Amino acid sequence: MAKIKIEFPDGNFKEFEMQTTVKMVAASISNSLAKKAVGARFNGELVGLAHQLTTNGSIEILTKDQSAALPILWQTGAVVLGAVLSQLYPQMNFGENAATEHGFYVDTDNQAGQVAETDFEKITKEVRNLVKKALPLEEVSYDVAEALKLIGDDPYRQDLIKSKAQGNQVRAIKLGNFVDFSATAVLPNSSALKFFKILSVAGAYWKGASSNPMLQRVYGTAFFKQADLDAELERQKEAHERDHRVIGNELDLFFVDPKVGAGLPYWMPKGATIRRTIERYIIDREVADGYQHVYTPVLANLNVYKQSGHWAHYREDMFPPMDMGDGEMLELRPMNCPSHIQIYNHHIRSYRDLPLRIAELGMMHRYEKSGALTGLSRVREMTLNDGHTFVTPDQIESEFKKILQLMVSVYRDFDITDYRFRLSYRDPKNKVKYFDNDEMWEKSQKMLKAAMDDLNLDYFEAEGEAAFYGPKLDVQTKTALGGEETLSTIQLDFLLPERFDLHYVGADGQEHRPVMIHRGIVSTMERFVAYLTEMYKGAFPTWLSPQQVAVIPVNNDLHLNYAHKLTDRLVANHVRVQIDDRNEKMSYKIRQAQVNKVPYTLVVGDKEVAADQVSVRRYGEEKTQTMSLAEFEKEVLADITSYSRANEN
Amino acid sequence: MAKIKIEFPDGNFKEFEMQTTVKMVAASISNSLAKKAVGARFNGELVGLAHQLTTNGSIEILTKDQSAALPILWQTGAVVLGAVLSQLYPQMNFGENAATEHGFYVDTDNQAGQVAETDFEKITKEVRNLVKKALPLEEVSYDVAEALKLIGDDPYRQDLIKSKAQGNQVRAIKLGNFVDFSATAVLPNSSALKFFKILSVAGAYWKGASSNPMLQRVYGTAFFKQADLDAELERQKEAHERDHRVIGNELDLFFVDPKVGAGLPYWMPKGATIRRTIERYIIDREVADGYQHVYTPVLANLNVYKQSGHWAHYREDMFPPMDMGDGEMLELRPMNCPSHIQIYNHHIRSYRDLPLRIAELGMMHRYEKSGALTGLSRVREMTLNDGHTFVTPDQIESEFKKILQLMVSVYRDFDITDYRFRLSYRDPKNKVKYFDNDEMWEKSQKMLKAAMDDLNLDYFEAEGEAAFYGPKLDVQTKTALGGEETLSTIQLDFLLPERFDLHYVGADGQEHRPVMIHRGIVSTMERFVAYLTEMYKGAFPTWLSPQQVAVIPVNNDLHLNYAHKLTDRLVANHVRVQIDDRNEKMSYKIRQAQVNKVPYTLVVGDKEVAADQVSVRRYGEEKTQTMSLAEFEKEVLADITSYSRANEN
Repeated sequence: MAKIKIEFPDGNFKEFEMQTTVKMVAASISNSLAKKAVGARFNGELVGLAHQLTTNGSIEILTKDQSAALPILWQTGAVVLGAVLSQLYPQMNFGENAATEHGFYVDTDNQAGQVAETDFEKITKEVRNLVKKALPLEEVSYDVAEALKLIGDDPYRQDLIKSKAQGNQVRAIKLGNFVDFSATAVLPNSSALKFFKILSVAGAYWKGASSNPMLQRVYGTAFFKQADLDAELERQKEAHERDHRVIGNELDLFFVDPKVGAGLPYWMPKGATIRRTIERYIIDREVADGYQHVYTPVLANLNVYKQSGHWAHYREDMFPPMDMGDGEMLELRPMNCPSHIQIYNHHIRSYRDLPLRIAELGMMHRYEKSGALTGLSRVREMTLNDGHTFVTPDQIESEFKKILQLMVSVYRDFDITDYRFRLSYRDPKNKVKYFDNDEMWEKSQKMLKAAMDDLNLDYFEAEGEAAFYGPKLDVQTKTALGGEETLSTIQLDFLLPERFDLHYVGADGQEHRPVMIHRGIVSTMERFVAYLTEMYKGAFPTWLSPQQVAVIPVNNDLHLNYAHKLTDRLVANHVRVQIDDRNEKMSYKIRQAQVNKVPYTLVVGDKEVAADQVSVRRYGEEKTQTMSLAEFEKEVLADITSYSRANEN
Repeated sequence: MAKIKIEFPDGNFKEFEMQTTVKMVAASISNSLAKKAVGARFNGELVGLAHQLTTNGSIEILTKDQSAALPILWQTGAVVLGAVLSQLYPQMNFGENAATEHGFYVDTDNQAGQVAETDFEKITKEVRNLVKKALPLEEVSYDVAEALKLIGDDPYRQDLIKSKAQGNQVRAIKLGNFVDFSATAVLPNSSALKFFKILSVAGAYWKGASSNPMLQRVYGTAFFKQADLDAELERQKEAHERDHRVIGNELDLFFVDPKVGAGLPYWMPKGATIRRTIERYIIDREVADGYQHVYTPVLANLNVYKQSGHWAHYREDMFPPMDMGDGEMLELRPMNCPSHIQIYNHHIRSYRDLPLRIAELGMMHRYEKSGALTGLSRVREMTLNDGHTFVTPDQIESEFKKILQLMVSVYRDFDITDYRFRLSYRDPKNKVKYFDNDEMWEKSQKMLKAAMDDLNLDYFEAEGEAAFYGPKLDVQTKTALGGEETLSTIQLDFLLPERFDLHYVGADGQEHRPVMIHRGIVSTMERFVAYLTEMYKGAFPTWLSPQQVAVIPVNNDLHLNYAHKLTDRLVANHVRVQIDDRNEKMSYKIRQAQVNKVPYTLVVGDKEVAADQVSVRRYGEEKTQTMSLAEFEKEVLADITSYSRANEN
């Protein structure tokens, strides 16, 4: 029989008989490994212990101790949950199953009625039964005809069989009577699902396309130890509490309705107030820092994006062009840089004009698959705090420093402290991958590093992470949920000035090529508000709060006039204040102000009216404090303006 | 021979022989009319004196005294100018000619070189020659083949002949050897063009489509009297000086580049500053007035516009839908109302929530033919100061009043005084043309009228001018150029609440239908800035000025420090100030500040530094005034805030 050659992580090779299983490979190393093993990564793909190897390749045996092994447990969980659901709901059809980042899901379509949260207990009980029974999960191969016969008239699995079939055969995982065509790597039997939790149900389109039927997605998770499951459930609870979609709904900040437009958020008045406050803040900061703000159109002739290279390299993220009927093709811009280049090129520029800092809250459109869209954080229409500085090569370092200083100062105003700087260089071993100007790269990379050192900022260097067109700095922020995302970026660009033939007249009277610096401080309004919502858990600082003060008269008949008097005075000072004069109990209104995370709640009753005072309760505190209106006014105004270094001028 | 029956403006009929000319009809009334007559309107179409009538119809004889006769003179002018050009430039091809609002043009394509402004004198001389020669203009009919032979290889006239031919025949006007296929009504001979002026040349696409070749459009005008020509040239001079495109270019406010996108303006930093100031102003005014500002997406599923009725009735003004590939068709919105309806419908609304005032600076896209696009005033992408109030039927009057009061107050802040109110009702004789709810119409029309009377506002009533969906008020402003345009509007809408099935829960616990009020105060940012630019002739009041103060040190070596000191202080007070430290003469810098219409110019020299003062020169004044910096600061800040009633709180 033929042999295959297997490479191990340490670089050693071993020969095995063709169709050796993963378990046998593990055993060839040690019995203890074979015992602990739950599967492997073979040529990058996850496989189960029973999987037979039929080609040469590299293998990494995975054990219960490795988080990399979890997806195998989760694929197993999806099959077990599918088997239980098919038993409880005989008319159920099944879409795809999958392991996710934190567990798994099963897409279902129960023609006799949906799965409700109240069914979770019943389902969980049956899963426990299957765990006890320790039924085998078998990797099997069917004739396509045989497989189609097995699953009956389930249209989704019919579709899956056809799309996954290789020739006349299709692979599947079989558990009792249930046959699954999604899972590839599973554990040997259902006892693996001991530490298991069914989490939620939600709608999901078949194949992620809104033109397809809506299925019901059942989410679950599982771990090898109870402690890990507990930790994950705790994390999910925390994540749920911080989830900007949950808070956004509770506080009525925004909504998305896929029927009206997937990934196209509607900002409700309160969310819009937060956004507008941020927009005015960042524009004022930038104008004070020498930026010239512009408005440029979201549409441009497609030729512009052909010239920029976006159409060639970025097309799949762009919206379809619109044929205007007289030969003009218009395109929704995916980026603002070409628009700012139009501004640069509208005049002949001299070295005296540089650095020229063009900024805009620029609306852009990017095509994201509907399945990837998430609240405000992954959308199709977004407004970017964008800026492009055009500099002479000598100005790179000072301009880079200036942008960094603005960035750090803005972060301070928004209480953002958990971030790190990543300085990305080209790969010195693979220079041909990058824009061809050795001197420019060397010089500018040194400049960026010198600026970081000079400002005494911590950073790490990443060789080979630069863009094709130039080195860059990214600010990686910790998200409230433990992930990491790039919030801000400063990118040098040697390429676009070439493509659009930009120049400036130097002191020597000759034409020179400027360098472009792309920079974003607070990213898109959508992403930034999502980020802040999760960071603040919805309890925005006073200056950002949609409602800054709630005024609650103890008795509308007796105290409403006084409430209006103090409200008018606060409004005149541009404080966002509302009187709650509903016919509800005072305790209820105070609770509502807390639920809505209003920074200040003022209660006014007989005592306050008599003494011309207010009783102030700060958000999150139990105690109240009595003070004159003037004192309160001073406090709230100081609170509102305290964020901003611009106000220190 | 057959007879035809002609109706006169007074309602009388007369019979004439078939093929009677217009001149003969005029003579049938009086010899003096026949003498003064220059043509007629026959069944609504302009015709020349020599035109033979061949059908029944109504006629209005036009004389030199009537401005309605000018288009006949202008069509004559187009033919005469064409004849002269064809004689001077033998290789010239000819597109269409036409009379415009104030004269005429001839589209040309001279293969041997373009017509330059320096050629105007030579052309004018030849026109005068033709005037002296008094050559006849003949209305002729050609066989198509004969016509094609006559014009040789001129591709545009070949095209015109084919498109205008009726059967085998094509009508034309012949003047000497020149044959024109555009004009229909002309004067009998070239002597008519006595008071004539050739005005300008500009590019124009053949048939207005940017995919077609660019032709050269030669503009001219003519009148029956020298005085009328003089008045028109004076009006054009004034119009040119006020033209927001001219001022926008001089002050560097914005530009449009058809290669990048026709009708898609780029706001340069100075224009953007004006726009941003207006945007913040109007949002603050509206928020203070109880509006809730939102942000809603520019894209929505096409189904939304099918439901609203826009797709059925407004489609030709809309952009082409984008096919997102999974069955979703996305459309750039032509109006914001459906977006605000989404906001309304996101919650169950109670009568306690009404009036609900939703506002937005909403970007919209409307398809306008490229030939109609004009600077900032006719564009394809625009941002509307839009608002929709949802009211109970009983609240119409008070809400209408509230909007009017806001409008009048805003107008005052922008110095807009030359406007009139038009109250538009349905046509009481043709009620079937309107949304079917007699009571609602009667009641609401009365309410609007009562509100106008109550506020003591002048207005005129226009029966039959209402929209299909409800009565409205338009504010007609005089444009700087003597025209009239609708700047603001308040429109009741009974229809959209039906189409989107809007309701609120009344005090009776039942569902009721709200009324929607569409309202715009300062129209689109594009149109409003165009309007203000022309109204102010570019000399914006201080609060709107992109640059409010220019600081000019007499000598950079001696006075620049002091200039920086006072500039820093003004910047800290958010004054938009710039130092002019260029190495230019002081007189030149002062002139430049005037050219740029900067409200305050401060000159600082030895005397000012010594006394800690500034020399202030206001825009448009010759004298300077010396004062302390504190005094100046007080003055400029008072000037900036003086516009705004919001600041009077």
